[in-house]
Amino acid sequence: MNTKINVTVWNEFRHEKSNEAVKKLYPNGMHAVIAAALGKTGDMNLHTATLDEPEHGLTDDVINKTDVLIWWGHIAHGEVKDEIVKKVQKRILEGMGLIVLHSGHFSKIFRTMLGTNCSLKWREVAEKERLWNIEPGHPITQGIGKYIELPNAEMYGERFDIPTPDKLIFVSWFEGGEVFRSGCCWERGHGRIFYFRPGHETYPIFYNEAIIKVITNAVRWAKPRVMIQDDCPNVEPLEKISEKDVDFGSAGILQN
Amino acid sequence: MNTKINVTVWNEFRHEKSNEAVKKLYPNGMHAVIAAALGKTGDMNLHTATLDEPEHGLTDDVINKTDVLIWWGHIAHGEVKDEIVKKVQKRILEGMGLIVLHSGHFSKIFRTMLGTNCSLKWREVAEKERLWNIEPGHPITQGIGKYIELPNAEMYGERFDIPTPDKLIFVSWFEGGEVFRSGCCWERGHGRIFYFRPGHETYPIFYNEAIIKVITNAVRWAKPRVMIQDDCPNVEPLEKISEKDVDFGSAGILQN
Amino acid sequence: MNTKINVTVWNEFRHEKSNEAVKKLYPNGMHAVIAAALGKTGDMNLHTATLDEPEHGLTDDVINKTDVLIWWGHIAHGEVKDEIVKKVQKRILEGMGLIVLHSGHFSKIFRTMLGTNCSLKWREVAEKERLWNIEPGHPITQGIGKYIELPNAEMYGERFDIPTPDKLIFVSWFEGGEVFRSGCCWERGHGRIFYFRPGHETYPIFYNEAIIKVITNAVRWAKPRVMIQDDCPNVEPLEKISEKDVDFGSAGILQN
Amino acid sequence: MNTKINVTVWNEFRHEKSNEAVKKLYPNGMHAVIAAALGKTGDMNLHTATLDEPEHGLTDDVINKTDVLIWWGHIAHGEVKDEIVKKVQKRILEGMGLIVLHSGHFSKIFRTMLGTNCSLKWREVAEKERLWNIEPGHPITQGIGKYIELPNAEMYGERFDIPTPDKLIFVSWFEGGEVFRSGCCWERGHGRIFYFRPGHETYPIFYNEAIIKVITNAVRWAKPRVMIQDDCPNVEPLEKISEKDVDFGSAGILQN
Repeated sequence: MNTKINVTVWNEFRHEKSNEAVKKLYPNGMHAVIAAALGKTGDMNLHTATLDEPEHGLTDDVINKTDVLIWWGHIAHGEVKDEIVKKVQKRILEGMGLIVLHSGHFSKIFRTMLGTNCSLKWREVAEKERLWNIEPGHPITQGIGKYIELPNAEMYGERFDIPTPDKLIFVSWFEGGEVFRSGCCWERGHGRIFYFRPGHETYPIFYNEAIIKVITNAVRWAKPRVMIQDDCPNVEPLEKISEKDVDFGSAGILQN
Repeated sequence: MNTKINVTVWNEFRHEKSNEAVKKLYPNGMHAVIAAALGKTGDMNLHTATLDEPEHGLTDDVINKTDVLIWWGHIAHGEVKDEIVKKVQKRILEGMGLIVLHSGHFSKIFRTMLGTNCSLKWREVAEKERLWNIEPGHPITQGIGKYIELPNAEMYGERFDIPTPDKLIFVSWFEGGEVFRSGCCWERGHGRIFYFRPGHETYPIFYNEAIIKVITNAVRWAKPRVMIQDDCPNVEPLEKISEKDVDFGSAGILQN
Repeated sequence: MNTKINVTVWNEFRHEKSNEAVKKLYPNGMHAVIAAALGKTGDMNLHTATLDEPEHGLTDDVINKTDVLIWWGHIAHGEVKDEIVKKVQKRILEGMGLIVLHSGHFSKIFRTMLGTNCSLKWREVAEKERLWNIEPGHPITQGIGKYIELPNAEMYGERFDIPTPDKLIFVSWFEGGEVFRSGCCWERGHGRIFYFRPGHETYPIFYNEAIIKVITNAVRWAKPRVMIQDDCPNVEPLEKISEKDVDFGSAGILQN
Repeated sequence: MNTKINVTVWNEFRHEKSNEAVKKLYPNGMHAVIAAALGKTGDMNLHTATLDEPEHGLTDDVINKTDVLIWWGHIAHGEVKDEIVKKVQKRILEGMGLIVLHSGHFSKIFRTMLGTNCSLKWREVAEKERLWNIEPGHPITQGIGKYIELPNAEMYGERFDIPTPDKLIFVSWFEGGEVFRSGCCWERGHGRIFYFRPGHETYPIFYNEAIIKVITNAVRWAKPRVMIQDDCPNVEPLEKISEKDVDFGSAGILQN
């Protein structure tokens, strides 16, 4: 019996083609590096999809087979078709997990799921970041220790315009003086959503073992617990309804 | 100095024109009855807007002057233009309050703000509803007492597909055997959102004093505390950034 | 390797000795019935403890071996020693799970963990209760369906004086007209807490398969994810502290 | 009509007597400085109370007249009598506000209200702290701007062992590399609780205008919205209870 988690790693995959330095770091794209790392866990089936494929690689068949979707995007959020975003939203509300990385904070799917702008402060000076693990009991932080230190990172600073997370698990300290809610969990419909801040394309973030450990844990946490189609049914009463002394034909108390 | 709260009551205003019974009950529309009732409080300026007006009555000028928007819709949610929904969402995230009534649970603006389907079970047999006040300390429940009883109501039953409310303040009991989270508060961006379940068009719900009391309290609770334009600024460091021993020209650690 | 969950079922065990009817229903105590039912799952080691044993059956050894503690009490909450409550609290904050049943809402351990009165309305007329499952994706509601119906139950009604649950999973409808938050989840320290309303001693609640299913699921949900001893360490800086132009030569460290 | 908020500032008042440097900074105690600053607002009546007064200055009369209690303690938490803590807890659950400052995180009243250890990491090297305002729309952060900077502070670092705040409004950055949830809001019973991190006795924190602004805002936010005595009433049904075909004299379904 195959009980592996079906993971689809979606990547915009543009920086890796247009920027020589990023290309050198991630010649086959960040999605390839993430997928390869997750593939080693043994309990996941990995699939990748990118913006420039037909339907952004997210055909009905792919979406319907995906248990957890990982999302990285940055410069081309606007090119993602609304109809695809709607299909992904529908699937998440049915139970699929969503993991949004770094600049994916501005993706259509993340903003659609949360309803807010998801804006923040930012700066790119290769500064140090330390992600404090504030929920050592949470499934996503298992094996992480007190903090993760990244020698060079793009800075994201508060205020991060998101709904209060159901659970906040990482808070970042930045060398330049800012803080950020770097690991945030939400539930929407029957699906789980995890936002994880690190992942800038010009640093080897996805080669970092601790980062991969977090994403691995997040996939296992976000895998579907149920898959339930949405409906809005007209239902019969479970208890006897008393006789009503209302005149349904006149104003006052009416009935269609 | 005018410190009154500028309230816009938006109504689909279709049932009142097409259904004789509803017309008799609300000859000028539910919005007119709600606005008249709120107008008596003395601390609110009332404005109304309806679907069939140009831009649904929600011009830039109206939106920008509105502190709290009340929303009732049912059979024509799909006719509300996406561009208007986006403007309303932007204003809420900046600080405007939103109060969604009854069948407005399926409105575009409510679903956009929450990110979920907002579906539920329903039945229309004029049954009794009792809304239990579970947060007697909340500003919205002041003066309400232990519960509100409605002799005849459409039933809405769980599961209500919403994000966990920041605060749940009313839970309904229905004669036919269901329960419902009938009063729910959220914050999104800088704005506050309140969903209130009662308000079916064929019953004189908006003539009920307790219902008007709740809506009055909700307007005062939801009025803007700030109005902040969204931005996503590139910022300078507040602390000195250490020298980096990284080769920004090669893969490994890169910099655009 | 034994990876079974070590469950301790704690029962006041007084009604079963003093009330003939309860005795007939639960001759060896409710704890025995619950433990027998959970024992059939195969993934749990069951242990029981009762008020009148030395240290209420909760010796250091028992507490330290317990992964999940189930608690039923009613007429003798005051007899539970404060020192035992403190030990149990310490263990929960380290990671142990706690499941509080029915009248345990007024137990010292529950009130200590939550900080509130945990009071409610109540009535005992053998009325019908229907527990609506409002989170079908939650681990505790798996296999439960839309609701659980109990033909005869003691009524507990709102307002239930508890902190807002992290997750509300069951809401009860009562024949007599009340509602209640019947299934509530919290995290405190590294431990998980679940309150489940049913369990009155004069009805055969713990022979009900759906009730046992919920408790079984709750044990699996509440099992420790970590076990971490509390500390409050004085730590060295991770970054260089700048020179301070303050007078460290006087008592304390001052800045005028 | 006197609608002023009755504020009681409670202080352990030991460091100021035993430590020359603290004495120089706060000759009449920190409570005197806080009370004087709040007194200037014009909408508060100020009262102070200290550990070494009879009943710690918290007689029934004082407690019953207090709308908002501010708490500072450090080296003598253990000397606060449990009976006084119980009275304060009772009053908070009825509606009184509580503001806990700095080392008050380990006070009996704070730990009693929250149910957790409230432990943290700490270090005292006069380092810089920057408290980021992550909820600019919250009443407590009005007039504060993007952050508060303190040139010298004791460090408190995560993990802070508290229940997830209902609302997290300040997050601190420390020069030495840590972060902390520095402004946390909760509701318990009908009362509101605010924890605010700054306030170390050897720095002139309570002479800082921004700190006083936060405490001022917090008093206004935490003032009682209701005052409700706790009860647990036996209530009559609101709906007719159906005839029960149960044999209350035999096991199976029983009734006392």
